[in-house]
Amino acid sequence: MSNPFFKNHGPFFVSDILNHLNIKISNINSNQKVNDIKDLLGSNLNDITFFHSKKYKDAAINTKASFCITTETLKKELPKTCIPLVVDNVLVSVSKVTNKFYPDSINDDFDDTAINIGKTKFKDKVKYGSNVLIGENVLIGSNCLIGHNTIIEKNVSIGNNCSIGSNTILRNSIVKNNVKILDNCVIGKHGFGFFPMNSVNLRYPHIGCVFIEENCEIGCGSTIDRGSMSNTVIGKNTFLDNQIHIAHNVKIGENSIIAGQVGIAGSSIIGNNVKIGGQAGISGHLKIGNNVEIGGGSGVIKNIPDNTKVMGYPSKNIREFLKENK
Amino acid sequence: MSNPFFKNHGPFFVSDILNHLNIKISNINSNQKVNDIKDLLGSNLNDITFFHSKKYKDAAINTKASFCITTETLKKELPKTCIPLVVDNVLVSVSKVTNKFYPDSINDDFDDTAINIGKTKFKDKVKYGSNVLIGENVLIGSNCLIGHNTIIEKNVSIGNNCSIGSNTILRNSIVKNNVKILDNCVIGKHGFGFFPMNSVNLRYPHIGCVFIEENCEIGCGSTIDRGSMSNTVIGKNTFLDNQIHIAHNVKIGENSIIAGQVGIAGSSIIGNNVKIGGQAGISGHLKIGNNVEIGGGSGVIKNIPDNTKVMGYPSKNIREFLKENK
Amino acid sequence: MSNPFFKNHGPFFVSDILNHLNIKISNINSNQKVNDIKDLLGSNLNDITFFHSKKYKDAAINTKASFCITTETLKKELPKTCIPLVVDNVLVSVSKVTNKFYPDSINDDFDDTAINIGKTKFKDKVKYGSNVLIGENVLIGSNCLIGHNTIIEKNVSIGNNCSIGSNTILRNSIVKNNVKILDNCVIGKHGFGFFPMNSVNLRYPHIGCVFIEENCEIGCGSTIDRGSMSNTVIGKNTFLDNQIHIAHNVKIGENSIIAGQVGIAGSSIIGNNVKIGGQAGISGHLKIGNNVEIGGGSGVIKNIPDNTKVMGYPSKNIREFLKENK
Repeated sequence: MSNPFFKNHGPFFVSDILNHLNIKISNINSNQKVNDIKDLLGSNLNDITFFHSKKYKDAAINTKASFCITTETLKKELPKTCIPLVVDNVLVSVSKVTNKFYPDSINDDFDDTAINIGKTKFKDKVKYGSNVLIGENVLIGSNCLIGHNTIIEKNVSIGNNCSIGSNTILRNSIVKNNVKILDNCVIGKHGFGFFPMNSVNLRYPHIGCVFIEENCEIGCGSTIDRGSMSNTVIGKNTFLDNQIHIAHNVKIGENSIIAGQVGIAGSSIIGNNVKIGGQAGISGHLKIGNNVEIGGGSGVIKNIPDNTKVMGYPSKNIREFLKENK
Repeated sequence: MSNPFFKNHGPFFVSDILNHLNIKISNINSNQKVNDIKDLLGSNLNDITFFHSKKYKDAAINTKASFCITTETLKKELPKTCIPLVVDNVLVSVSKVTNKFYPDSINDDFDDTAINIGKTKFKDKVKYGSNVLIGENVLIGSNCLIGHNTIIEKNVSIGNNCSIGSNTILRNSIVKNNVKILDNCVIGKHGFGFFPMNSVNLRYPHIGCVFIEENCEIGCGSTIDRGSMSNTVIGKNTFLDNQIHIAHNVKIGENSIIAGQVGIAGSSIIGNNVKIGGQAGISGHLKIGNNVEIGGGSGVIKNIPDNTKVMGYPSKNIREFLKENK
Repeated sequence: MSNPFFKNHGPFFVSDILNHLNIKISNINSNQKVNDIKDLLGSNLNDITFFHSKKYKDAAINTKASFCITTETLKKELPKTCIPLVVDNVLVSVSKVTNKFYPDSINDDFDDTAINIGKTKFKDKVKYGSNVLIGENVLIGSNCLIGHNTIIEKNVSIGNNCSIGSNTILRNSIVKNNVKILDNCVIGKHGFGFFPMNSVNLRYPHIGCVFIEENCEIGCGSTIDRGSMSNTVIGKNTFLDNQIHIAHNVKIGENSIIAGQVGIAGSSIIGNNVKIGGQAGISGHLKIGNNVEIGGGSGVIKNIPDNTKVMGYPSKNIREFLKENK
């Protein structure tokens, strides 16, 4: 995963990490350094990774990480090069370790580095409205427009020929060329990820960003959350209508069309040339193939293979749905 | 009900109220004063209340109010200490009388008392962004953050350690400690309550507020309407995702988790430790028990007992739903 | 259709239009002028129209247009006074020709003509909040309120006694007397209309406006898109709750009540005295009769006759729905 925005405060001694997780392991070189925390396939030698569901068995077998937060049951799947750190709750432990490496990724308070664009280097380069604010670590290409009251918070890169509407907020996002983002959107805030605890929930760090590829359009009032351990991606030439919600880690392919008020839950992957009708909802962690059509109002709770048309709640083959409901 | 915000313009002579409703009652001391209008159980001696559905029979029997707006059929349920005022349309009459006591509660025009925070007593106490406005009768605790373009309209109390995002509007709301309200929300506007009339609908007064308890989080683009005769309440440590709509008088318990684009219609009561999946909708005037799980996309049109998992539209036991839809 | 806002750059010689579409027709007076492009029934002598589906056969027979963009199959339905221009894709060709007549209707970038209301003629006439912007070609009647950070972009006419909330954006809209538009709305942006093309989608011109009749109320966070070839209309005394999405060309009748999070897809026509429950969705190009009630959460995919109550997805007679789901 590309994580251009959040500063890695590591490396840390593995002994520090073990202390942080309150676990003990014998036969470990406690002075070994751990560089980063990444997912199973993204991690390298001297990284720490995590493995919490047998769904990811194939990835676990091939991980290059030196350490892996996992369970007693799953640890046997790991290669010998990877030392298991057995914990009660893998994801809570991952959250703690990620927070150690990336302490700035938890907090999504308003960006107090944002200042009026007229006081920045963009004042002569960008065409902008009234009361536009720009945070730290922002790049904006040539021939861009930014509407009134819009806030480009810190950690945003915008390509060429982009048009951002008014009253919109961007943060932790990479926007490629020729993208339009309309009014009243919020792009790049942390996802709805946390560990429920009575009294005070524990927020999950979100070190990913939102990636919007070339020629996309994002409709008014939409929200796109940034990823936790990976990015949220909107593929090339994909158009989103108004009031759409895209949760963390979702990846949408190219040339897709998503109508108003659709919601896509966390970590689902949508293919290319997909059409989704208004108000449809897609559950988390699903895989929707290429050239899929999902009828308006559908509730998708299973994977959908390529070249399929579905409708209904739960969604089924559209012919079947229409026949049953004649 | 706690109604800290709207000024009670009473007491009024009961004769004034009878005139206002265009009804006549013999054998009444027309100089008796009426202090306030409240619901059946909240009202005291010398208050006026209302009783419009036999659903509330048990409360009616026990009301302490001296007067009750009701119907010919229902009046016999009232205790002898409570004089019935019989009308054709109870709720329209309640609306008229509430409007007499609380004339400021109808109108939700923009708050013209709001001024730049830099000109208020909060300028050194609160960490704030650009273009933040504060209305009359606002309290803000210590260690709070308020983002850019956010408007804290009149009648808002914010506790300690709260983080309010950017482009958000609050009004008539009580926010306790450690609450996060993200960007582009509108909290505390009147609910969607009115009496349909051809040509010009009659708006129902909303004298309640929005109460957000400690450690809550409210996602981007959400709307929470204030109550009409009671408060809208979000319980302690309850988290709401993006684009959620909570209607007037809804009460949500503690430690609940509500995913994106959920809508809860007016006056429904949600228990503690409830999980609601994305895009689910809950009809008005329902009671959802503790430890309930509602699957994404569900449409709930009946009460749900404690410790139940439901899914579907209309929602049913989740096992049954999944079995039927295999 | 009334199109007060977009400048017609015509007339054009018919030969110019044929070149633009890259088609050739013999036996045509290439110097004949074409005044405007309109739909089948709205067009007059020397206008060009279009006919792309046999659904519109009756209108086609009666068109007064001199030219019609259509297909080989449909052209025989046209009257002899109307010369068919046969193309492969009618709507793409219509888009190109509309773009030629109305080049300003494609682009919905932020309105750079908008300036602070304090610098306009409205400064003493309107009661307004902080940071209100007004674009070119705006009319505002007497006794109006405009909230903080609201942007009345170009091409807006507002009647008397209107109250516009805060953080709201209007463009290309006609708002009649006594209308309330609450906070965080976006009214009058182009609809989600375009021709999907791999690599770069082709946007459809939107030369219509949003028409909001007297005594309407539009809830917080709602979006209403302007029409493409006709207007989007909200009828007299119709109330919309929060987070509603109304797509392009939709027409809603009088005295209708639409609850939170409802979505109505493009070109559907809703009658008078219609009630729509929360989160219901209505597909595009449908006709919903007068006095119809649609239950919350319904998905409407067929026309609904007058005086009908429906519920379900797909929606059916409400008694049947409730019976089946007891």
